[in-house]
Amino acid sequence: MTIPFLKMHGLGNDFVVIDARSRTLSLTEAQVRAIADRRTGVGFDQFIVIQPPRTQGATAFMQILNPDGSESGACGNATRCVAHLLMEQSGIAEAVIETISGLLPATAEANGLITVDMGPARLDWRDIPLAGPADTLRLDVSEGPWSGPVAVSMGNPHIVFFVDDVDAVPLERVGPVLEHHPAFPQRANIEFVQVLSRTEIRMRVWERGAGITRACGSGSCAVQVAAVRRGLTDRRAEVVLDGGSLTIEWQENGHVLMTGPVALSFSGVLQPDLLGQTSVGAALVTA
Amino acid sequence: MTIPFLKMHGLGNDFVVIDARSRTLSLTEAQVRAIADRRTGVGFDQFIVIQPPRTQGATAFMQILNPDGSESGACGNATRCVAHLLMEQSGIAEAVIETISGLLPATAEANGLITVDMGPARLDWRDIPLAGPADTLRLDVSEGPWSGPVAVSMGNPHIVFFVDDVDAVPLERVGPVLEHHPAFPQRANIEFVQVLSRTEIRMRVWERGAGITRACGSGSCAVQVAAVRRGLTDRRAEVVLDGGSLTIEWQENGHVLMTGPVALSFSGVLQPDLLGQTSVGAALVTA
Repeated sequence: MTIPFLKMHGLGNDFVVIDARSRTLSLTEAQVRAIADRRTGVGFDQFIVIQPPRTQGATAFMQILNPDGSESGACGNATRCVAHLLMEQSGIAEAVIETISGLLPATAEANGLITVDMGPARLDWRDIPLAGPADTLRLDVSEGPWSGPVAVSMGNPHIVFFVDDVDAVPLERVGPVLEHHPAFPQRANIEFVQVLSRTEIRMRVWERGAGITRACGSGSCAVQVAAVRRGLTDRRAEVVLDGGSLTIEWQENGHVLMTGPVALSFSGVLQPDLLGQTSVGAALVTA
Repeated sequence: MTIPFLKMHGLGNDFVVIDARSRTLSLTEAQVRAIADRRTGVGFDQFIVIQPPRTQGATAFMQILNPDGSESGACGNATRCVAHLLMEQSGIAEAVIETISGLLPATAEANGLITVDMGPARLDWRDIPLAGPADTLRLDVSEGPWSGPVAVSMGNPHIVFFVDDVDAVPLERVGPVLEHHPAFPQRANIEFVQVLSRTEIRMRVWERGAGITRACGSGSCAVQVAAVRRGLTDRRAEVVLDGGSLTIEWQENGHVLMTGPVALSFSGVLQPDLLGQTSVGAALVTA
């Protein structure tokens, strides 16, 4: 068995992308983890499977898996990459990406950037979800406390902390503790944010199931929503990540628009040495 | 410009391998570093370019580059991988790999493993090279001292320290200090070794120009030579690395035989997004 794939990234947030719309794909969770190994596999922050659309109006369905094999509900950088592929194929500067969290319309900008409507931000504690109303929760983290985070769902849970110096946060230590904190029954993506001006904010991210990454699209949306909510930025701002910048706009209708670049690093074909040894176990990805 | 490549590994020591025997290849040092990035490029411990042989009797020439763009004189794991490719192509279970350090004859074993004659180990301080005779050198390292290392050249310089507990060594801290120590005018690969029995030794490695890797073939040869030299092991022993085991034999004639596995993870084609931006600078790899 050999499987063709693309290696893409958005601001250094990197993806193995497999088109399973016209061929059968069946990988075990062990095989996905083997592909995730950056030395003996390919390596990725998220594993993306393009499948036939399940809903009318969608161009394609996008399945998102983390390196640990768990499924993710949203990945903004990967949405731009998949939208770009579908637009290149169709020759039309629009596509609608379907995920388990909903439909994401995307458009190509004149400068080559891709804008995705990431849908409405949700702020109710039951939608994040939190273990209870935000004002009842305590985040006892020994390295902290960074009190009063803002919780935002962009289809996946984000917890946004505002700090004076984002580079001083020991993210590799506090990230995993906060991700697995009992306040977050479905775990959480953890963002630390420093407001630079009304139109520019700096962020660092610990992604659920993936750890520190150079950029997180849905996280960029969450932090801009949180900053507007706190009255710290205008509706449209640049979010500066380790891997580059995204422009995020929280519209009056509640939807969040994300604009940023995509890149194709290489195309490839997975070989039997990588896939052959792990043929046992239940099929995880099928299309 | 798109460039086909293979991603291979020997015990998790991983390589981008490009066959430049029948097509022109010209990459800048900046492009090699871009390919080395494990998120926005491909990622590798060593970058291998197969070129036409320069010497009679050689099957092909193997150029070896580190992720920082510097050139390496030897890489045992990559030699097995390249030998395997050449044998698959020719249908003959023998190949001779040429490097800047000399000719390395290789044979395929019945069990799929590859044996490489890594050439003679050299022990004279001028051949390593050291800054002076070994007994005149002092390694003042704050985390140490690990006194009395053995210096071995396998075409590249290795400094072998014997310790009681190899897992207790803070390799990420002492590795770079020792690599750049003034005692080693061409820098050095740093190995820490724990002797388990007359036929089994455990090692961890800091590779010159690459940092901690899961396995180093020439380093495995160097540590077995050092252990025999100290009277600690028999001529033939298993060297247990983080990524798996190699069988190393220091023959009476001075040559070192290394036997171990190879794996092909995926084939690929580098895309313009990865190569296009960095067209300035002198051509580094040409064939």
